Amino acid sequence: MSVEIVSIGTELLTGLGRNTNAERIIETLDSLGIPVDYITTVGDDSARLGEALRVAVHRVPIVITTGGLGPTPDDLTRKTIATVFRRRLVLDETILAMIRGRFRERGIEMPSINEGQALVPRGAQVIENQRGTAPGLHFAHLHAEVFVLPGVPAECEAMMANYVVPRLKGLGLGSVTGRRIVRTIGLSESLLAERLTGLESEGIPLRVGYLPHSNGLDVTLSASGDAAAWISEALDHAERRVVEAAGAAVYAHGLQTLAEVVGAALGERGLTVAVAESFTAGAMGTSITSVPGSSRYFLGGVTAYSNRAKQDLLGVEAATLERVGAVSAEVAEQMASGARARFGADLALSSTGIAGPDGGSPEKPVGLCFLGIASAEGARSVRHVLGGTRAEIATRATAYALDLLRRHLQGGVRP
Amino acid sequence: MSVEIVSIGTELLTGLGRNTNAERIIETLDSLGIPVDYITTVGDDSARLGEALRVAVHRVPIVITTGGLGPTPDDLTRKTIATVFRRRLVLDETILAMIRGRFRERGIEMPSINEGQALVPRGAQVIENQRGTAPGLHFAHLHAEVFVLPGVPAECEAMMANYVVPRLKGLGLGSVTGRRIVRTIGLSESLLAERLTGLESEGIPLRVGYLPHSNGLDVTLSASGDAAAWISEALDHAERRVVEAAGAAVYAHGLQTLAEVVGAALGERGLTVAVAESFTAGAMGTSITSVPGSSRYFLGGVTAYSNRAKQDLLGVEAATLERVGAVSAEVAEQMASGARARFGADLALSSTGIAGPDGGSPEKPVGLCFLGIASAEGARSVRHVLGGTRAEIATRATAYALDLLRRHLQGGVRP
Repeated sequence: MSVEIVSIGTELLTGLGRNTNAERIIETLDSLGIPVDYITTVGDDSARLGEALRVAVHRVPIVITTGGLGPTPDDLTRKTIATVFRRRLVLDETILAMIRGRFRERGIEMPSINEGQALVPRGAQVIENQRGTAPGLHFAHLHAEVFVLPGVPAECEAMMANYVVPRLKGLGLGSVTGRRIVRTIGLSESLLAERLTGLESEGIPLRVGYLPHSNGLDVTLSASGDAAAWISEALDHAERRVVEAAGAAVYAHGLQTLAEVVGAALGERGLTVAVAESFTAGAMGTSITSVPGSSRYFLGGVTAYSNRAKQDLLGVEAATLERVGAVSAEVAEQMASGARARFGADLALSSTGIAGPDGGSPEKPVGLCFLGIASAEGARSVRHVLGGTRAEIATRATAYALDLLRRHLQGGVRP
Repeated sequence: MSVEIVSIGTELLTGLGRNTNAERIIETLDSLGIPVDYITTVGDDSARLGEALRVAVHRVPIVITTGGLGPTPDDLTRKTIATVFRRRLVLDETILAMIRGRFRERGIEMPSINEGQALVPRGAQVIENQRGTAPGLHFAHLHAEVFVLPGVPAECEAMMANYVVPRLKGLGLGSVTGRRIVRTIGLSESLLAERLTGLESEGIPLRVGYLPHSNGLDVTLSASGDAAAWISEALDHAERRVVEAAGAAVYAHGLQTLAEVVGAALGERGLTVAVAESFTAGAMGTSITSVPGSSRYFLGGVTAYSNRAKQDLLGVEAATLERVGAVSAEVAEQMASGARARFGADLALSSTGIAGPDGGSPEKPVGLCFLGIASAEGARSVRHVLGGTRAEIATRATAYALDLLRRHLQGGVRP
């Protein structure tokens, strides 16, 4: 029992779009223990899409397509399916009414071009789109189940979660596969892998995966077999080993984000936080507020890009800027203290650094940053030299700043 | 004349590895005007790889594979090619000596497992690997040219540049394909498509693609044929038609971002900008500073999540907050004026809205936002109701705020 993903869209073949839908679907299926055997990417071209669909239904039992369900002439999936699988397209009045309703909600009249989205290949089940106008489709052909999803990531993801996953579970897939994720920040992949050498062959066989990303490093543990109890025990053991090896670097078990972990800790203790940002320019606030309900603990922030703004809005001392420069531990600490006072917050975070590509020097290279934290006990800071592009440096610094807050709230210190 | 990329590696099907090789190859081929028709991704499985290769050589004239050339037992490309294309594997002594040499350079004796990398399918041309041990392969099968490259990105990239690209140019590919991109914001995909109905058949045939993303909608135009002058003329005509249809919604020709367009306009006129953010919580500052050198025109920002911060830091009037609430045109305008004064900036942007998922009401639903702009002439604001997740609402609002600034700088008004 395995899956082929057919990703549809010329932008995926011309460097304009990254195939995030396939990446997401893989993650979802992997967590269910359902293997993906093939991904085929084709452009908005009826002949080639038809060829890809014909090949897919013959070689795997489950086909998931994404893209090509929009209203414009380059959206060809519906028509191609009708041709390849010889199913006539029928106008579905219920769907049409729903699409009209979506436009009405936004106060716009439905352009006639959108009518085509209500065409359904005869015998196909319609998958409701709760986030957009293009409905999905589901039908069986030969021995294959075919799921046809839109290319807009949020819509595709919602249909996967609300329709495809329950159907796949109904097919009896993925029942005795276990999977754990341990999220860490602050340790390198090779160091952690070295500490975990041999883990794959302790007890029942399991797979250990390492996925570095901008918020740290996820360790994934997966095992499958025919006894659920055994699998669960083996994963418990492996998870304990990862926690021992990673120590305070572990911030979550499962898919909780760093911002969610920090938010939960602040919420529990009834504490508030503010931020003072220089080169991260708002990324810290954006990250903290990615959590619904964060307005309960996030008061706000100041982005002080210029030295003048650092003085005027955050009370950084001119003499300090003069003596050690804006990218320094002292300025990071004064920024954090300034934001804490300014917003009347219990805690404050700060960032100052050089995002590049220009502005570096031998003493202060691109990627150098200082991240500060202020509390009732005073302010302190950490220093990092980060690699990557301008955007990556800011994203990593933001993660490290949030981690500083996490460790503070957990009463720990940086290793 | 077109290409299929066959990406080989189980990590690409389990969510652990992103397919960066395919992304790079696409970019390279796109810049040469060579279309990619398919990407097929398969795991380290001989049967499935064989199937994928058989399909590929029958449907395209050029096949490029990546991965599976390493020395470990899960590297199966060489063997599979030998089986599928009935070419015996022959030990190539020159290659073997070269691989031994690579290890000697590093002061290590070659592990015997690496000998397999010197096996070459009979009749295949060896592609030298200047960065690693696994040589690439090149051979013809039926009407297809097959290029077999390693999965290590740096090695794959070097072989593309040094061997594959010169060969493809030698085949006379990529000479007469043209491509244009027009980026727009503020118009719906279906409306624009309706206005452009028939464009594909005016003059020489060309393809029109629509790619909606969080910063608007890209319209791509591509044409190929046997006379470069004609193609260029046809694309000029089509691009003019898109500009007529989209009007002030057009913000870039090519791949420039909205932040780059705004930054260039500010830079040219020597103007500075500051931001006052509520629910976008730093996303506006992050977006503006995504451009290197943005410190020349971006002074900073205040994120005022709480009403108190809106008053204290931005001078929003308590009476206004009381009368119309924080999510209102008046507050957006006062926030923008406050940030402009506070930072001494020429221009300021602001945002206030409801990102959800909670906090909405019938009068002020989730997704409602007001975006303000202040200049020496005073402040004004626009109202949007945006769909999507919490993050998407903030991202879209940020794009619309930057667009407000773009239109102001271009002396235009919102349609």
